[in-house]
Amino acid sequence: MKFAPTLALAAAGLVLAAGASAQSFQKPEDAIKYRRSAMTVMAVHFGVLGAMANGKAPFDAQAAARSADVIALVSHLPFAGFVPGTDKGDTGAKPEIWTEQAKFDAARDKMQDAVGKLAVAAKTGNVENLKMAFGPAAQTCKACHDDFRKKL
Amino acid sequence: MKFAPTLALAAAGLVLAAGASAQSFQKPEDAIKYRRSAMTVMAVHFGVLGAMANGKAPFDAQAAARSADVIALVSHLPFAGFVPGTDKGDTGAKPEIWTEQAKFDAARDKMQDAVGKLAVAAKTGNVENLKMAFGPAAQTCKACHDDFRKKL
Repeated sequence: MKFAPTLALAAAGLVLAAGASAQSFQKPEDAIKYRRSAMTVMAVHFGVLGAMANGKAPFDAQAAARSADVIALVSHLPFAGFVPGTDKGDTGAKPEIWTEQAKFDAARDKMQDAVGKLAVAAKTGNVENLKMAFGPAAQTCKACHDDFRKKL
Repeated sequence: MKFAPTLALAAAGLVLAAGASAQSFQKPEDAIKYRRSAMTVMAVHFGVLGAMANGKAPFDAQAAARSADVIALVSHLPFAGFVPGTDKGDTGAKPEIWTEQAKFDAARDKMQDAVGKLAVAAKTGNVENLKMAFGPAAQTCKACHDDFRKKL
């Protein structure tokens, strides 16, 4: 696999918009599978950064930058999957996602902002910057899950 | 959700390397879930492009470019999940992935090349270019699935 310069997307304030929309899904379960898949990809790369931030894995500046870029990019994807009527089935989505949509959207924006900053921090190549940005980003995940995801 | 200029990544010949590695997964099932999730994200965005290429959805140049960029980027992710020993469990992965690794890697490279070209084509804003690049890209998916994925 070739390696490449990391992308200065977050630093440039660019966002990658979703491309998928409610119309992309033929069945409710397709939308659920899509958003869960995007969340899984984010979670794995969050784990990579968390291990470095918490000293459980050696700091690898290049791998950190790449994982942070993946998170920043994929953070824009899951939301197309929160189609109305997809609070049932193989999902932990709470109905509040649709009944308190402005609050949900604000939580999404906060997360996207924090992971954008995390990508900037990761690309400084300084583990201390990564550590400082990781907590606030992780907190936006937790806050949204607390409010909008059922307890497992 | 804010929209942004599409990324000229594929055009610039850049690739986004994975960031995750075999060490990112504590259990074999974590690696399987990760690669399947990345594949699901790709499949949804392939569906968006396919519908446009096949005239089943109106051509939306911006949405096409975005979906093609998502595919090009995410196409680099799943392979970190093909950790040795993960041919069992909730997976259709054939053992040949590991016993014929050079062939598998070649199929991966071919797919990444084709979806890179698809992203370039999608960004021309011309549906005819999208149609011409879509078939060859889809063919690389099919070829690899035929050889390396169990029949469902």
